[in-house]
Amino acid sequence: MSEVLPGYVQGAWWTPDSDAGALIVRDASTGEEITRVSSQGIDLTGALDYARTVGQASLGALTFHQRAVLLKQFALALTERKNELYALSARTGATTADSWVDIDGGIGVLFAYSGKGRRELPNGHVYVDGPIEPLSKDGTFLGRHVFTRLPGVAVQINAFNFPVWGALEKFAPAFLAGMPTLVKPATPTGYLAEAFVRILVESELLPDGSLQLVSGSVPTLFDDLRLGDIVGFTGSASTAAELRSQTPQGVRFTAETDSINASVLGPDGVAGTPEFDAYVRQLVTELTTKAGQKCTAIRRAIVPTASADAVIDAVRARLEAKVVIGDPRAEGVTMGPLVSLAQRDEVLRQVQALQDAGGRIVIGTSDAPEVRGIDGSSTADGAFVAPMLLRFDDANTDAVHEVEAFGPVASLLTYGAPSEAAALVARGGGSLVTSVATHDPSFATELMTGIAASNGRVLFLDRVDARSSTGHGSPMPGLVHGGPGRAGGGEELGGIRAVLHHMQRTAVQGSPDMLTALTGVWHVGATARYDGIHPFRKSLAELQVGDRIASASREVTLDDIETFAHFTGDTFYAHMDEQAASANPFFPGRVAHGYLLVSWAAGLFVDPEPGPVLANYGLENLRFITPVSPGDSIRVELTAKQITPRETDEYGEVRWDAVIRNQNEETVATYDVLTLVEKERSAA
Amino acid sequence: MSEVLPGYVQGAWWTPDSDAGALIVRDASTGEEITRVSSQGIDLTGALDYARTVGQASLGALTFHQRAVLLKQFALALTERKNELYALSARTGATTADSWVDIDGGIGVLFAYSGKGRRELPNGHVYVDGPIEPLSKDGTFLGRHVFTRLPGVAVQINAFNFPVWGALEKFAPAFLAGMPTLVKPATPTGYLAEAFVRILVESELLPDGSLQLVSGSVPTLFDDLRLGDIVGFTGSASTAAELRSQTPQGVRFTAETDSINASVLGPDGVAGTPEFDAYVRQLVTELTTKAGQKCTAIRRAIVPTASADAVIDAVRARLEAKVVIGDPRAEGVTMGPLVSLAQRDEVLRQVQALQDAGGRIVIGTSDAPEVRGIDGSSTADGAFVAPMLLRFDDANTDAVHEVEAFGPVASLLTYGAPSEAAALVARGGGSLVTSVATHDPSFATELMTGIAASNGRVLFLDRVDARSSTGHGSPMPGLVHGGPGRAGGGEELGGIRAVLHHMQRTAVQGSPDMLTALTGVWHVGATARYDGIHPFRKSLAELQVGDRIASASREVTLDDIETFAHFTGDTFYAHMDEQAASANPFFPGRVAHGYLLVSWAAGLFVDPEPGPVLANYGLENLRFITPVSPGDSIRVELTAKQITPRETDEYGEVRWDAVIRNQNEETVATYDVLTLVEKERSAA
Repeated sequence: MSEVLPGYVQGAWWTPDSDAGALIVRDASTGEEITRVSSQGIDLTGALDYARTVGQASLGALTFHQRAVLLKQFALALTERKNELYALSARTGATTADSWVDIDGGIGVLFAYSGKGRRELPNGHVYVDGPIEPLSKDGTFLGRHVFTRLPGVAVQINAFNFPVWGALEKFAPAFLAGMPTLVKPATPTGYLAEAFVRILVESELLPDGSLQLVSGSVPTLFDDLRLGDIVGFTGSASTAAELRSQTPQGVRFTAETDSINASVLGPDGVAGTPEFDAYVRQLVTELTTKAGQKCTAIRRAIVPTASADAVIDAVRARLEAKVVIGDPRAEGVTMGPLVSLAQRDEVLRQVQALQDAGGRIVIGTSDAPEVRGIDGSSTADGAFVAPMLLRFDDANTDAVHEVEAFGPVASLLTYGAPSEAAALVARGGGSLVTSVATHDPSFATELMTGIAASNGRVLFLDRVDARSSTGHGSPMPGLVHGGPGRAGGGEELGGIRAVLHHMQRTAVQGSPDMLTALTGVWHVGATARYDGIHPFRKSLAELQVGDRIASASREVTLDDIETFAHFTGDTFYAHMDEQAASANPFFPGRVAHGYLLVSWAAGLFVDPEPGPVLANYGLENLRFITPVSPGDSIRVELTAKQITPRETDEYGEVRWDAVIRNQNEETVATYDVLTLVEKERSAA
Repeated sequence: MSEVLPGYVQGAWWTPDSDAGALIVRDASTGEEITRVSSQGIDLTGALDYARTVGQASLGALTFHQRAVLLKQFALALTERKNELYALSARTGATTADSWVDIDGGIGVLFAYSGKGRRELPNGHVYVDGPIEPLSKDGTFLGRHVFTRLPGVAVQINAFNFPVWGALEKFAPAFLAGMPTLVKPATPTGYLAEAFVRILVESELLPDGSLQLVSGSVPTLFDDLRLGDIVGFTGSASTAAELRSQTPQGVRFTAETDSINASVLGPDGVAGTPEFDAYVRQLVTELTTKAGQKCTAIRRAIVPTASADAVIDAVRARLEAKVVIGDPRAEGVTMGPLVSLAQRDEVLRQVQALQDAGGRIVIGTSDAPEVRGIDGSSTADGAFVAPMLLRFDDANTDAVHEVEAFGPVASLLTYGAPSEAAALVARGGGSLVTSVATHDPSFATELMTGIAASNGRVLFLDRVDARSSTGHGSPMPGLVHGGPGRAGGGEELGGIRAVLHHMQRTAVQGSPDMLTALTGVWHVGATARYDGIHPFRKSLAELQVGDRIASASREVTLDDIETFAHFTGDTFYAHMDEQAASANPFFPGRVAHGYLLVSWAAGLFVDPEPGPVLANYGLENLRFITPVSPGDSIRVELTAKQITPRETDEYGEVRWDAVIRNQNEETVATYDVLTLVEKERSAA
C-alpha cells in the first residue's frame, strides 16, 4: 500500500492520523498505485490563520523587489531538481514535451515575474496607479490611486492538468503582491504539486507562511474565508459556479475554466498557403499535446466550407505521420494517456454526446487505440484515448458550442461569410482563446471586432509569425489568461496586472506633503529642500525625495537660437523665420528649440564632477508648455521624486521632477529625468 | 390623482395601459402626491434588445472622441434647463446645496468625462492597454492588450438619494465606452430622473438607443441579461447580495452599497488645532447634507478618548449655530427631510437598534424635530428627522460597525493607540471612504497601512487642505468610487478606469503588421514606407501610420561634444574627462550628451519649411541605450505611430516612433515624438 500524500501547513509537513477513506491515485499509463490522498483531520482554520498572521508578516517585511529576487531563487531551486519533477510528471501521463510545458513553463513564470517585478514595480510596498488627479485650483488638495496588498490569504484550487505551472502561475503574482498562498491541488496529480512544494520548502528560501499545501477534499474551506482573502479557481465551469455561490461576501473569486475555444481558418488560407499549413499544424498540436487536456485546447475548428475536406485530409495525414500514442516513458511516444480511467470514461461520454447531437467522427475512433508500452510493463490499465475530429453538418448545433470533451477531441464546423465565422466563435459563450489563421488584415479586423469581447486572448497566425508563434494553447506570463463568460470571467497572468488583482486599489486624497509621505513619491507642491549639498553629490543612502537643486537663470538670445539651429541642423521655420513663425497658431514669433531648453536645463542643473550620479538613462513625459522667445530667461528646478535602489546592483534609479520656468514664473516645460545613482558613495 | 410617470423605451415615451397597483410618490416635506409609478406591461425584453441592436449600432458608429463631444453637449443641454430640475429636486427633500451636489455634480461628471475622453482616449474604437509584450526573439510575434466595448447593455439600478448624479455617473463612462444604458431609478425620486432624461431626449442629441428609462419594479429584468451585459447597482448591501445571486453567469455585476464609513481624528488633532476644527466641520456637514442620506456619509466618528467630549461639544455647538431643519423651499433652511415617511421610519428603527446595542444619544433626539415650513403649507406629513450623534462606551460593539441608519445619524467611538483606530475602521467590513484628520505623516502612514485594503477612498484632512478639500462625502469623477466588502466590491468613476470597466480586455498576439492593422497604432517591426514625400509635409488627411523618414548619417566628433558642452553648460565628466568617463561603469570613455543626440536627430529628421506639422509639443519614453563615442555616426528613423485628429480643432496629435542608431546598427536611443499637425493642408 502506498504512502498517504503529506500536506504542508503551518510551517510543517502534515499527514492524517488515519488513512480511512483515502483516495488511491494511479499511474496514468500502467494503473500502478502511486499514492493515497486524504485531508482527514486537517486544521484548515489554523492554516488560514497562519497565512494571515505569520505569512502576512513575513511577506509584509519584504519590498516588491525583495520578493521578486526570491522568485528568481525559487526558480533556480526548482531548475536544479527538475529531473525529480520530470520523473513524477511522466506518471501523470505527460510526455517530455508536456512536462516541459508544466515544469519549465511554471519555472518560467517565476523568472518572468521576478524580472517584471524588478523592472515595473517600485522597491517598496505601495504601487502608485495613474497620474495625479488635481482636486483644487491652488494645488493644495490632490488625489492619487494606490494599490496596497490584501490582508488575507490567496487560496488556489487547481486543475489536474498542470500541477506545477497551474500552481506557480497563481503563486508568483500572489507572492509578488505580498499575499501568502494556500495551494489545493487536484487529487489525480497532487503528488507532483507536493514534489515542487517540497523542493521549495527544502530550499529554505520560503518566507514563513508564504506557501502552504493541502491535498484532498476541503469541504469547510470556504466557511473560513473573509474580506481580504482571494480564491483563484481553475477547473470546470460547473464547479466554478458552485464555488462562486459558496464564496462569502467580500472575498474575491476568480475563475479560469475550460472553455469551448475556437480556431478559425481565414478565407485566404486555402490549401497550399503558409496559413493553411500553420493552421493544420497548430490544430494537430492542440489536439495531442497533453492528450488534449488543456483549458485552452481547440475544441472548435471553424473553416471555410470550401476548405473543410482539405483540412480534414491534412490533419489526418499529420496525425498519422507524427503521433505515437503510448506510455510517455516509452521510446518515440508523442502522446500520452489521459490522467485517469475516470477521466477517459468522462471524455468518451462527452464524445458520445457530440455524436448524439449530429457529430460524425471523421478522424480517429472512440475505441481503445493501439498503444506503445515500455518493455515489460503493461498498458492494459492505462487511460488511453485516440485523437478524434468530429464533423458537424450544422454549425449551429447547440452541443458543439456547449459540450466539452476534455481530451484529444475537436469538432469541425464550416462557414460561408466572415460574419458567420465571428458569430460561431461567439456562440461559445466566452472563451479563453481563439486563434485565427489569416494573412488578410481586413478579415482579421472584421473577425476581431466580432469576437474580441468574448475572448480573453486572440492569436493571429500567418506566414510571418507561424514559426515564432508561442501557440494557441500557451498562456504567456505577460499576457492575461482567462476569458469572459463560460471561461470564468477571471484574469490571471498579464504581468503586473495579475499582481494588482491581489491588491486593493484605493483613491487617496490629501495635501502634496501627505501624499508624498504615503506613497514615497514626491508630489508637485510638496515640501522641497536644498541643504547646501547638490543632490547629485548624494548617494541613494543620503538622498531623500524632495531634495532639490534650483538653478540660476539664463537668458536665451536670438544668437543662441541660431547657433543651436546651425549646430544641430534643426532649422525649423518656427526658430528661423519671424514671419512664418508668427503665422503659426502656437508661437508669438521665432522661439527657442525645445531641445535647446532641455539641453540648457541640463547645463543649469548638472554637477559636473564624478559623483554618485552615474548616468542619465532617459527622460519621460516631456511637455513644452510656454514658448520661449529671444530675450526670455529660463531656470530649472530639479527635485528628487522617486528613489529605487536595486537589490542586486550597487546602484539604483532616481527619477527627478524637472520644471523649467521663464522670467515671468510661467512654466516652460515639465518632465522627468531618469538617472542611475550609486547606493553608497564610492571611496574615490 | 397624479399622472403615471412615463418611461422612455425603444425610442419613445411609454406609460402603462392600466395604473392598477401604481405606487404613489409624495413630496418629502408636505406629503403632497407628485406622481404614481408603475411598470405594468412594459416590454423589458424589447428594451434590452433595442439597446443591443439599435443602441450598439449607433454608439458603435462613433469614436471615443465623438462620444466625448456629445457628453459635453448633454452637459450643456442640462445646464440650460437645470432650473426645472432644481424645482423638482426640492420636492425630494433636497436643499439647494443638496441639489447642487446632485444636479450640478451630475452635469460635472459629464463635463469631466468629456474632457478625459478626449485627452486620454484615442479618437478611434480600440483602447490599447500597456506596452508591447515581445513574444519572440526575432520580433515577428508580439503581444498587446486591447479593450473593446462589451456588446450588450449597461443596466443601472439606482438609489433614491441622487437621482441625477447617480444616473449620470454611471451613464457617462458607459456612453464613452460605447455601451447603451438602461436606467432604472429608485421609485421615490424617479420623477427627477425622468426629468433629466426628458431634457436629453428633447435635446435630440442622444444617439438612438443609447439611453432608456424604466421606472417601477422590474422583476423579470435579470432573466433577460446575458454575456456582454453589465449591471451597475447602487443601494443597500442586502439588495446587492440578492441581485448578485440573480445575475446570470457572464454578466458583470458591480455594486456600490452604503457602508459604515468612518472618520478618524488623529491624536495630534486636539481642540484648538486646525485639524480638530476641520474634523468637526466635516462631521457636521456629512451629518446634515442630504439629511445624511448618502452612501458615503460618516457613520462612525472615531476619536482619541481624550478628545471625545471636546468633539461632542463642538459638533453640538456647530449644529445649533448652522442647522435649520425644514422644507427646503423655506427661507434659511439648511437641512431637509428624508425622502419619505417610510425612510424616516426605517432610520428611526435603526437608531433604536443602535440604542439597544448600547448607544446613547448625546446630540439630538429621535423625537420629531421642530421644523420650518413655507408660508401656508403644512409640514405635518414631512419625513423630518433631527441630526443625532450616539456614543458607544464599548467601541467594539458589533452593532456600531454593522447597523446603518441611513439618515442624519452617526456614532462616536474612542480609541487609545493608533492601531486601535485602524482596527476599528477595518471592522466596518469594507467601506466606500474613510477620512482622517491629522497633520502627522507618521500617524497617517500607520493608519493608511492598516485601513487601505478595506477602503475604496481615504481622505487626509489637515491645515493645508482643510479649505480646498472636496470633502469626505464627495466622490470625484477622476477618483474611483466604490469599496471592498460591505461597500459592494465595485468601482465606479476613477476617470478612464470606469470606461474600461465597460469594455473587455483581450490579449492579442500576432505579427507587427497584424497588430498595427488591429489597433491603428504602428508596432515596431511592422511595414514602414517612404513614398517620396517627407511625412512632415502630409496633413492628417494624408498621413498614414507607418509613413517614415529615414535620415542621413552624421558623425559625432570630439569637437562637437565640446562645442555642445560649452554651449549648454553641461560639462558632466562623462563628456569631458576621458579618464573619469572610463571609470564609469556605463561608458567606454568620453561620450556624446544624450541631449546632443536627440537635438541632432531633430535636425536630421526635420523638414524646415512651413507645413502641416505645427509644433513638437513633447516627447515620451526616451531611453538612451548605447553610448555614442567620438567618431561614431548616428542616423534616425521617424515613423508615424498614432494619428489622433481632434473633433473640435483644425489639427490633431501625431505620435512618431523615433529610433537613433549608430554606424553598427546598434540602437542608440528610442523615444516618441509628439507633434501637432493640421487636419488639412492650409491653402498657403
